[in-house]
Amino acid sequence: MSDPRPLLPPVSDAEADPRVTAVFDDIRAVRRTDLVNNFWRALANDPAALERTWAEVKAVMGDGALDPLTKELVYIAVSVTNGCEYCIRSHTAGALAKGLDDAGLAELLSVIALANKTNALVNGLRPPVDAAFR
Amino acid sequence: MSDPRPLLPPVSDAEADPRVTAVFDDIRAVRRTDLVNNFWRALANDPAALERTWAEVKAVMGDGALDPLTKELVYIAVSVTNGCEYCIRSHTAGALAKGLDDAGLAELLSVIALANKTNALVNGLRPPVDAAFR
Amino acid sequence: MSDPRPLLPPVSDAEADPRVTAVFDDIRAVRRTDLVNNFWRALANDPAALERTWAEVKAVMGDGALDPLTKELVYIAVSVTNGCEYCIRSHTAGALAKGLDDAGLAELLSVIALANKTNALVNGLRPPVDAAFR
Amino acid sequence: MSDPRPLLPPVSDAEADPRVTAVFDDIRAVRRTDLVNNFWRALANDPAALERTWAEVKAVMGDGALDPLTKELVYIAVSVTNGCEYCIRSHTAGALAKGLDDAGLAELLSVIALANKTNALVNGLRPPVDAAFR
Amino acid sequence: MSDPRPLLPPVSDAEADPRVTAVFDDIRAVRRTDLVNNFWRALANDPAALERTWAEVKAVMGDGALDPLTKELVYIAVSVTNGCEYCIRSHTAGALAKGLDDAGLAELLSVIALANKTNALVNGLRPPVDAAFR
Amino acid sequence: MSDPRPLLPPVSDAEADPRVTAVFDDIRAVRRTDLVNNFWRALANDPAALERTWAEVKAVMGDGALDPLTKELVYIAVSVTNGCEYCIRSHTAGALAKGLDDAGLAELLSVIALANKTNALVNGLRPPVDAAFR
Repeated sequence: MSDPRPLLPPVSDAEADPRVTAVFDDIRAVRRTDLVNNFWRALANDPAALERTWAEVKAVMGDGALDPLTKELVYIAVSVTNGCEYCIRSHTAGALAKGLDDAGLAELLSVIALANKTNALVNGLRPPVDAAFR
Repeated sequence: MSDPRPLLPPVSDAEADPRVTAVFDDIRAVRRTDLVNNFWRALANDPAALERTWAEVKAVMGDGALDPLTKELVYIAVSVTNGCEYCIRSHTAGALAKGLDDAGLAELLSVIALANKTNALVNGLRPPVDAAFR
Repeated sequence: MSDPRPLLPPVSDAEADPRVTAVFDDIRAVRRTDLVNNFWRALANDPAALERTWAEVKAVMGDGALDPLTKELVYIAVSVTNGCEYCIRSHTAGALAKGLDDAGLAELLSVIALANKTNALVNGLRPPVDAAFR
Repeated sequence: MSDPRPLLPPVSDAEADPRVTAVFDDIRAVRRTDLVNNFWRALANDPAALERTWAEVKAVMGDGALDPLTKELVYIAVSVTNGCEYCIRSHTAGALAKGLDDAGLAELLSVIALANKTNALVNGLRPPVDAAFR
Repeated sequence: MSDPRPLLPPVSDAEADPRVTAVFDDIRAVRRTDLVNNFWRALANDPAALERTWAEVKAVMGDGALDPLTKELVYIAVSVTNGCEYCIRSHTAGALAKGLDDAGLAELLSVIALANKTNALVNGLRPPVDAAFR
Repeated sequence: MSDPRPLLPPVSDAEADPRVTAVFDDIRAVRRTDLVNNFWRALANDPAALERTWAEVKAVMGDGALDPLTKELVYIAVSVTNGCEYCIRSHTAGALAKGLDDAGLAELLSVIALANKTNALVNGLRPPVDAAFR
């Protein structure tokens, strides 16, 4: 059922207007790679959305109260729960690059699976929130 | 629209059969608290499900390749994405008890929100998975 | 966070126009009860939607290749997965009225929970579909 | 992981029974096209479900208080949020045929993405509903 | 099961630091109202997230290729699909203020409901994407 | 957008350690088949998760208050709602092997679709829970 073509055509380096080129350059500089992956090339059809989303990724995913690897794990948890394949594959690659190993990935999946299981149990049982959690 | 009563009645300490009592005692011992929260009391209507789920929580949520606080953050990410209020409140309480502060919680929510946003962008744009992520 | 008022006001018997009254009467006749529950009263703000949805419920939820109780269990499984409280409570009431007991309800929740867990594992592991399943 | 075969075989024009043929003819007439797309051919395994669903699409998606293009955008928003690829591709084609251009599509995706982001923030922060919204 | 307290305390005007006050003032000016609703007050615990999200709302939800009311309808469609009550109530209020009437709201809900229904049919039937949609 | 490779490599019989071999043997014995399908081979990268999940499947999916075919239908309902293709295909195969026919499958999909539709209507209308359902 899957179709490899994106809904909007990927923007190549040659087609990029100056605003898009500036973001692509910054992605390469911040990530220390030549790769501008297909998500950004698809989003580049809307330069304002590209700028806004890349700025948000830089502000949110960097080091802060939580470290960048932890943030990748949280990102994967959301993406697995939503069933977003591209998101799972790209952020798993990101987490492995930041130090996650196969044992950590397996453990992460067990936590995500358990959370989805107990979320369903709670939805079905509907226990009242304990006073201690308020 | 919300109704405070659970679908199955909470099992009190007095009503608990020996299998349930054994799990409740272990919850208290492992967590070093007197509280057996309402999720476990609702699940205790099915002693086998109670035993199985508590054993899984102990096996999965403890220290391993990932630390217990990181696992709580992953749990919250799943629960927020699924919109499970009890789960969010109970595991936020758990994360705060394990050292998360308000700045970390706010940062966590920004990561979860960004992931849900970009999951939607990917779903809509459908970029092909880059060779580099395979 | 919950607010008990519906987005559109419930339509009382006195306010019902003839199309709405006809559906309400049929609900009472088919279900052998005086109760027209709040879902139908809210939907009655749009008589065409009320007629269409009630006709669909009658066509789909009755006896057929699958029996009515099995259909209620399937309905609950969807509603728990979507976290729809009203749906869970109304169709659990329906299933209990059709013969489900507390042991069956607990078992149902264990199946729903397991399915949500393994769905997450599959989303994260992404195994290829086996030739045997095609 | 994807498999191009549907779970139930598509019904060709030659295999269609009279009830199915009548719906296929009406689809072609209403949409002024020869194409009966694969969704309807799969659903045609159950002629009653085909009739019911096509009647609903005609009743709901036509001109009314909301115009047909707006309804396509709403449909896409649901489909992106649910991650249903076939639905996204077929209704994006429908919206483009009804006048949406690439700029409108990009803007639509930004709204859908923002809504999924703020839904997550609300789920995590759980602000009480303001009196002004009641 | 619902608990009226937010996870992070609402920030009152008196407690707001200058960055928060600037956003609150801009919300009031842009929306021509004195109300700063509870979502923004909860988000204000993280001034950077508040600034970023409000800037995004202004950039995305204003007039453009799509009009503001259409964008509110899309927002509601996402929020209903995700089951986010606060989001549904606040954006329904927004849509009504922008001209939606009760008939339009009822019609909107019928479209959202139909889309969720056919998304499920597609997920279950898995028809291949037609060549015409590519 | 789909990629046929799993995130963790499938474990072949030759590579399996004794704990994995024991589970694979039990899967074959319980299911009276030589096939160990790809889900279990991917999960086998984490022998503890494999043991735990297989034990849960045996405990939950067997005969009890509900029969095994009904449980497969519930599993499919969850998987369709979550959009998990592998899960839908593997459990549809399981249900067909347990006696479901094409008419039953079509009826099942109509129930799942209706439930997703009315869940959306309830989310949008937010009727209060009737006293009779409590």
